[in-house]
Amino acid sequence: MLGARGGWRALRRCASLPRAVRLRVREALGAREPAEAVRVQGWVRSVRSQKEVLFLHINDGSSLESLQVVADPSLEKRDLTYGSAVEVQGKLVKSPHKMQNMELQAETIHVVGPCDIWSFPLKMKERHPLEYVRQFPHLRCRNNTLGALLRIRSEATASIHSFFQDNGYVHIHTPIITSNDCEGAGELFQIETSREAKESVEKSHFFNVPAFLTVSGQLHLEVMAGAFTHVFTFGPTFRAENSQSRRHLAEFYMVEAELSFTESLQDIMQVMEDLFKTVTSTVLSKCPRDVELFHKYVAPAQKTKDRLEQILKHKFMIISYSEAVEILKQAPQTFTFKPEWGCDLQTEHEKYLVKHCGEVPVFVVNYPYDLKPFYMRDNEDGPQHTVAAVDLLVPGVGELCGGSLREERLPFLESRLQRLGLTDAYQWYLDLRKFGSVPHGGFGMGFERYLQYILGVDNIKDVIPFPRFSHSCLL
Amino acid sequence: MLGARGGWRALRRCASLPRAVRLRVREALGAREPAEAVRVQGWVRSVRSQKEVLFLHINDGSSLESLQVVADPSLEKRDLTYGSAVEVQGKLVKSPHKMQNMELQAETIHVVGPCDIWSFPLKMKERHPLEYVRQFPHLRCRNNTLGALLRIRSEATASIHSFFQDNGYVHIHTPIITSNDCEGAGELFQIETSREAKESVEKSHFFNVPAFLTVSGQLHLEVMAGAFTHVFTFGPTFRAENSQSRRHLAEFYMVEAELSFTESLQDIMQVMEDLFKTVTSTVLSKCPRDVELFHKYVAPAQKTKDRLEQILKHKFMIISYSEAVEILKQAPQTFTFKPEWGCDLQTEHEKYLVKHCGEVPVFVVNYPYDLKPFYMRDNEDGPQHTVAAVDLLVPGVGELCGGSLREERLPFLESRLQRLGLTDAYQWYLDLRKFGSVPHGGFGMGFERYLQYILGVDNIKDVIPFPRFSHSCLL
Repeated sequence: MLGARGGWRALRRCASLPRAVRLRVREALGAREPAEAVRVQGWVRSVRSQKEVLFLHINDGSSLESLQVVADPSLEKRDLTYGSAVEVQGKLVKSPHKMQNMELQAETIHVVGPCDIWSFPLKMKERHPLEYVRQFPHLRCRNNTLGALLRIRSEATASIHSFFQDNGYVHIHTPIITSNDCEGAGELFQIETSREAKESVEKSHFFNVPAFLTVSGQLHLEVMAGAFTHVFTFGPTFRAENSQSRRHLAEFYMVEAELSFTESLQDIMQVMEDLFKTVTSTVLSKCPRDVELFHKYVAPAQKTKDRLEQILKHKFMIISYSEAVEILKQAPQTFTFKPEWGCDLQTEHEKYLVKHCGEVPVFVVNYPYDLKPFYMRDNEDGPQHTVAAVDLLVPGVGELCGGSLREERLPFLESRLQRLGLTDAYQWYLDLRKFGSVPHGGFGMGFERYLQYILGVDNIKDVIPFPRFSHSCLL
Repeated sequence: MLGARGGWRALRRCASLPRAVRLRVREALGAREPAEAVRVQGWVRSVRSQKEVLFLHINDGSSLESLQVVADPSLEKRDLTYGSAVEVQGKLVKSPHKMQNMELQAETIHVVGPCDIWSFPLKMKERHPLEYVRQFPHLRCRNNTLGALLRIRSEATASIHSFFQDNGYVHIHTPIITSNDCEGAGELFQIETSREAKESVEKSHFFNVPAFLTVSGQLHLEVMAGAFTHVFTFGPTFRAENSQSRRHLAEFYMVEAELSFTESLQDIMQVMEDLFKTVTSTVLSKCPRDVELFHKYVAPAQKTKDRLEQILKHKFMIISYSEAVEILKQAPQTFTFKPEWGCDLQTEHEKYLVKHCGEVPVFVVNYPYDLKPFYMRDNEDGPQHTVAAVDLLVPGVGELCGGSLREERLPFLESRLQRLGLTDAYQWYLDLRKFGSVPHGGFGMGFERYLQYILGVDNIKDVIPFPRFSHSCLL
């Protein structure tokens, strides 16, 4: 018989320990009952050798907390150090200490991989600053703060997918490489094959036309909303702006959703608010200790957790752009940019508005027609002509989400594109308005800014798995 | 008080129908009880006007099936045509027809958006070939086949996230822009800012070093597996190969996972098999009608559903590379490439092997050392020297997954990198082996190939939301 499992003799078998139940650290810590014959694997976070007893703490990334291992000093070995990888087998018992539920009484300790502690840049029980660990993109995930961040990021990601799935949205992978620049906003990254880049002369484009990295999946999503009613995407987007700031990245993640059959901008704001509240509650309940680490040690001044819980209880505020300008004009402080109807809100303005509203998230709605891209829906008001656009401002970060109703009426869109000389480029977009066009709208939320906001992280480079602009090969 | 909801007068209110419960088509079709005052919105898939009664079918993308609407002929209007968008209000009642559970007795029909049927490329009740609809990237999602595909794609995506989440994996967004080419395999896309592209002379790189689009997140994931034990990513990857084939795309999605503390290649194969079976069962149970459409009309000869259900019940086969070569050598047929130990398996070989094994998925393990990249784990066997690599071959598609144990032993890796002259470039990778290195491994699965396989779709361009290489602005 072909393919019997014995046929591949070359497969390696590990150290011949008797089979014990393998538990992740998180499972061991959360166990309700003691258990015999348990195996736990992970990396040593501390070693404390006393005369009568040897204490270890083992972490495997499944939780912020490490599992305490209690062993006979005879089990100590020279390479059983901070940073080494171990497999411990023994009994899981109730811990006599208040701080933990369970501990592991070791019967065997096997050092799977030793650690050269002299050159290992992370040190035992030291709280390394984020700037320090950012220098070691391949090792910093073994630091508590980055570990916590990436578990939170993973939970938030899962929660975003569930939120839309549970609400009947179809997930769409919008193109990364595109010939479409969406709003004409922001510097783009262009793509060529590496061979073209080397030859660097007259190029024949791989895709026949110049191709860029996407700045937004909105227009592609709009197409899909015209068939599935509710759609979303959650993927990477790119801006070739100078990203040495603490608020911008060249590569960042964006959650985008589009809804058909909207009745007002309120429909869009409701989804933004529900998304924010659902994901934030999930993260707070699923990663309480990880979130606590940020609120205690990374952003202690901000008491972010209490504030977040308050925010989850209340409806977000709504003001119109015109009201916002009035508030700014009456402000006792002087701004670098004088607030004026028809001008963009600057960061200093956004900050003041959020403060004025009590440091809570604020929707600003109905922006001047002339400030906004062609696809936003004309409110047909006057003399201050606006479109049905909305930005969600949050303390510390500024704009977290942006959205609008889209112009679904063919004549409005036609005349606007004509004035802008864009009719040819957007023929397909006009086309959509000829075949069962419906009121619709959507929004985007920057995922990294969201994480910055809920965790109080100052530098956006510290909420991504790998810091950009490091001079490592791991860029 | 600031921000009262009345403050934004400019927000538009829709047609002033009395409030009825809004239901998606899927909800209406699945309702257990009749209901008064129901609103359904969607696009008209058929209009049939009889003397006594007007029949409509409404689809909103929430399911393949449309909802039948029964109305008095007096409700007919000139713009109530195929393709138009409507809102229908009425009573949801049990349908007298066997083919459907519920139907809607219309009280009002409001045409939200008319359809210019003369220029609309999709025609009522016509089964358009996939090649035809591929010409209309902005409209083809309103075709049944593409609708079904994208709902399946969305369910499969959600199921992949759940599978890993439920099994304790941390999700990592590995970088899209990277200076790392992973395996040196495949032509890369290079990135520059669009300004650099225009000037086209001596370039100062935006990232200081040449930057490329990722071909795999594997190496970044390996870093993370050294902290979280189990990690995965599911994102876009790129190859600048000529993609005019029916099996390749320039931009495609890949699921990748890495596991620490592996005991053998078996651990990796187990996850591949579990992933395949879990996602496939979920798709079969959540989108039965959508899948049925493919198996009935797109790939009818293949009886794919029965075959899939058989496959889900049995363990996947396993053969070694050496066994595979023996089977090929004994084959009664002649190959273009003569099978020989030490040479790559060609598509014709893979096809024969899968057929020989009974047209089921087959793992091929332990490939020649000299064929495989430096990071694969040396099996230390001989005289036929192999590494612990595995490919999963499936009928019709060929290689669906590829994986390996990674070389965790510093001396083995050091000498191999030295021989290849890659020591400097992979210093960080060597570094990982100094600080608690553990046996580990991982794999990648091409998402589009997965969809091609389970649905029997011939051209890979038909399993992505937007076909590449169309000459539309929607590239």
